Amino acid sequence: MDSKEFREAAISSIDEIVNYYDNISERPVVSTVEPGYLRKLLPSEAPEDGEAWSDIQQDIEAKILPGITHWQHPNFHAFFPCATSFPSILGELYSAALSGACFNWICSPAVTELETIVLDWLAKLLGLPECFHSTGPTNGGGVIQGSASEAVLTAMIAAREKHLRETVPSSLEGDAREDAIALKRSRMVALATTATHSSTKKAALILGVRFITIPVTSTTSFALTGSLLTAALASCRARNLEPFFLTATLGTTDTCAVDDFPSISSALSTYTSDPTSPGSLWVHIDAAYAGAALVLPPIQSSTSLPSTATFHSFNLNMHKWLLTNFDASCLYVRDRAWLIRALTVNQAVYSNSASSGGLVTDYREWQIPLGRRFRALKIWFVLRSYGASGLRAYISKTIQLGERFASLVQERKDLFEILTGPRFALTVFAMRGGSEEEANVRTRELYSRVEGSGKMWVTSTVLEGRFAIRMVTSVRTTEGEDVERAFALFVEFAEGILGGEVGV
Amino acid sequence: MDSKEFREAAISSIDEIVNYYDNISERPVVSTVEPGYLRKLLPSEAPEDGEAWSDIQQDIEAKILPGITHWQHPNFHAFFPCATSFPSILGELYSAALSGACFNWICSPAVTELETIVLDWLAKLLGLPECFHSTGPTNGGGVIQGSASEAVLTAMIAAREKHLRETVPSSLEGDAREDAIALKRSRMVALATTATHSSTKKAALILGVRFITIPVTSTTSFALTGSLLTAALASCRARNLEPFFLTATLGTTDTCAVDDFPSISSALSTYTSDPTSPGSLWVHIDAAYAGAALVLPPIQSSTSLPSTATFHSFNLNMHKWLLTNFDASCLYVRDRAWLIRALTVNQAVYSNSASSGGLVTDYREWQIPLGRRFRALKIWFVLRSYGASGLRAYISKTIQLGERFASLVQERKDLFEILTGPRFALTVFAMRGGSEEEANVRTRELYSRVEGSGKMWVTSTVLEGRFAIRMVTSVRTTEGEDVERAFALFVEFAEGILGGEVGV
Repeated sequence: MDSKEFREAAISSIDEIVNYYDNISERPVVSTVEPGYLRKLLPSEAPEDGEAWSDIQQDIEAKILPGITHWQHPNFHAFFPCATSFPSILGELYSAALSGACFNWICSPAVTELETIVLDWLAKLLGLPECFHSTGPTNGGGVIQGSASEAVLTAMIAAREKHLRETVPSSLEGDAREDAIALKRSRMVALATTATHSSTKKAALILGVRFITIPVTSTTSFALTGSLLTAALASCRARNLEPFFLTATLGTTDTCAVDDFPSISSALSTYTSDPTSPGSLWVHIDAAYAGAALVLPPIQSSTSLPSTATFHSFNLNMHKWLLTNFDASCLYVRDRAWLIRALTVNQAVYSNSASSGGLVTDYREWQIPLGRRFRALKIWFVLRSYGASGLRAYISKTIQLGERFASLVQERKDLFEILTGPRFALTVFAMRGGSEEEANVRTRELYSRVEGSGKMWVTSTVLEGRFAIRMVTSVRTTEGEDVERAFALFVEFAEGILGGEVGV
Repeated sequence: MDSKEFREAAISSIDEIVNYYDNISERPVVSTVEPGYLRKLLPSEAPEDGEAWSDIQQDIEAKILPGITHWQHPNFHAFFPCATSFPSILGELYSAALSGACFNWICSPAVTELETIVLDWLAKLLGLPECFHSTGPTNGGGVIQGSASEAVLTAMIAAREKHLRETVPSSLEGDAREDAIALKRSRMVALATTATHSSTKKAALILGVRFITIPVTSTTSFALTGSLLTAALASCRARNLEPFFLTATLGTTDTCAVDDFPSISSALSTYTSDPTSPGSLWVHIDAAYAGAALVLPPIQSSTSLPSTATFHSFNLNMHKWLLTNFDASCLYVRDRAWLIRALTVNQAVYSNSASSGGLVTDYREWQIPLGRRFRALKIWFVLRSYGASGLRAYISKTIQLGERFASLVQERKDLFEILTGPRFALTVFAMRGGSEEEANVRTRELYSRVEGSGKMWVTSTVLEGRFAIRMVTSVRTTEGEDVERAFALFVEFAEGILGGEVGV
């Protein structure tokens, strides 16, 4: 394919993509193919000779799109959204064209510098404490990771290194040092709550450190509080364990709960007089989804963002709710040296005069992979195309859609009960029943009928033994009428279930 | 930006990209900006109101491109290439448009199924042993990771889990089990050679396991051999250490050395009677760059690929030398259950009937991140557009360019000495000198003058104390005349250095 053929192929692709978006609501939101469908449609080997683009392109509609679940569909209310937007797609296009493995500054200075700049823009937009800005007083800053899982793992690696560096006496050498580190490793604990995303547990598994969950319940709206944390820390002390890492969450997966940052901060001040002192607990804030709502100043206030200024890292996925293609997971740390000390491994072939000069950022030292894509470009395009006001308007709209849905649910108290929310465009609800068991049976049936209908996609969870449906209204294409139609479907199925109760 | 505006913006972007590629050789290959250049050009905050695409787009040429090092430039001879191609860019475009966080099969069945299929296509094309095919006898298969660093880390996580599972007595429970695991962890060692890429060391650091390098020298052409491995294993045994992981390399970073797979395999058979038995050493093959050359059957033979059938994992980055955009790092394992056991962490919200049914692959269980992009699409487009014959022709051509460069170097034995190669389009050479020190001074000066010229980009390394230049000729746009011009530049500078020796 030469550049002329590419131009034709690309314009034809753009036309197909425009048509896809213009008519997305006519497709079933969730793919209905059977497992193994594609192997039946494709040859078992790569072709010997190259094929024409027109032949390849027609297979997209014929063979690929039937197997796509449409995350940008207005009736996608599952998980959290995975945003895209037209400016973001253009960002991916340019990024692909300018492809490189930009691990060091010199490998493309713009890739590094734009990343630092747009992450500062974002930090300001979200109202993050200055310690997370690259120009802030603590030498912090942001870096784009692939996913929140990588962000929490990266933070935990840095936290472990920091803890060992600060608590193993520097006087120890050789075998004595090795032994002290081995003993310490065996006692170190990462903490999270029962509502924390599973990625923290996975990170602890990968590092081979202990992992303890602090139970949170509806009593605190599934949020971690200072007193729960204090009790957990005391319990660790009693067992001679050393907590070194805590994930606090702004918007948990199940219910969008927000941990109580001010009381967590106070609890940590009591635990160690200075929460920024050596050996103190690293606090990572997982704001993967709901962090996007911090573009709204009232949300910055209600989540007590300034109280996170003593915390160590913060993560937000722009690819969830901020109109930026997967992947764009923004990780901020209060001191970038923590990452660099833990993640730098040198090799002769990567040495260059810019890096040796010490004036540049080499983001390979801030992450697990070596190479990296030019992901800052799409963030830049999105922030500029929408502007701060455009992003605030979009986030506000989707939150209001969530409130609209919850108010509809409230109007049918005969059928439904809201368990949590609406919070950050998420409402978690269940069918009512004479007993918890009956309610669970009905809600499972409701979930199953919705899933079977193919008309929308929602996901489920279990809260304190109660099976519940999570309804999210933050996809870009979702409008008020979609939410109303979704609610009407829930009502129709719920009434059907009650009407045919015997048959359930 | 609505879909009509997107269409216009996208076509304008395509035109700019076509123009970029048509005229790429007119740009300086390495960016010449000063550190901090971009902050001076951009505002310190995101704009309050959205901006027009035309304003954004003009900043690409004006502000971004001066900060780009052009990895697709014909004079890019540094590191290894980071390939792109027009079909691959189209793959990224469609992937961006169909954006989703496709962690489970149901999140878009096509994303999972196409990945399994194209990785099987690739395995056949490379002549990988059947154990690495998804349809093979050992329940193996491939998965796309972001980078070779993630691939080796993922393999090492699985290897550690496998080793602990197979060697800690299942009769142990509770604290006794914890203690046995802690003791074992403190003794486990990951092995590599001094020529192995730094990502293996980084993976060991992340996992917190010991890491031992086996020195390799020019005596074995910087390759690991069975006897070197046997000696290292014996040394570990004598120190009561347990080797559990070895990275063997097909194409090392410095010199493209290929470890001696048959003798490694024999050494392992001697070490444990059955190299696939419980507790045996996990062998990971890092073929990140040179694995691409396996599309040529003679290379499959010369690297003794069948002898890797007892090894455990294999990694190739299509984004280096196989015309596919970063990221497309293909990791194969002989038994996928090893990954799934080590990396699966469940959470209620991810449960769905397809996963529960057990008939589908959920790739989140094969990797560190949860979400994933539709990366199989670009691989599919590349394999179909080029066809097997097209890829063979391209790889052959770039290898021949490397041979052409080396033969030019050989013709000027008065100036240069080849230290290794040509191998896989890489020649490592140095200037001659009366002493090693003099040769190093001259070669460093040569490197510095080439770097300063801005006319091409090469990287350097140090081999047994000798400073050397790595010349790679595998970028898609590089032609014979570019290689000849590059050589002429080396000669010009080298003669200048000799002529003005006093001033060196």
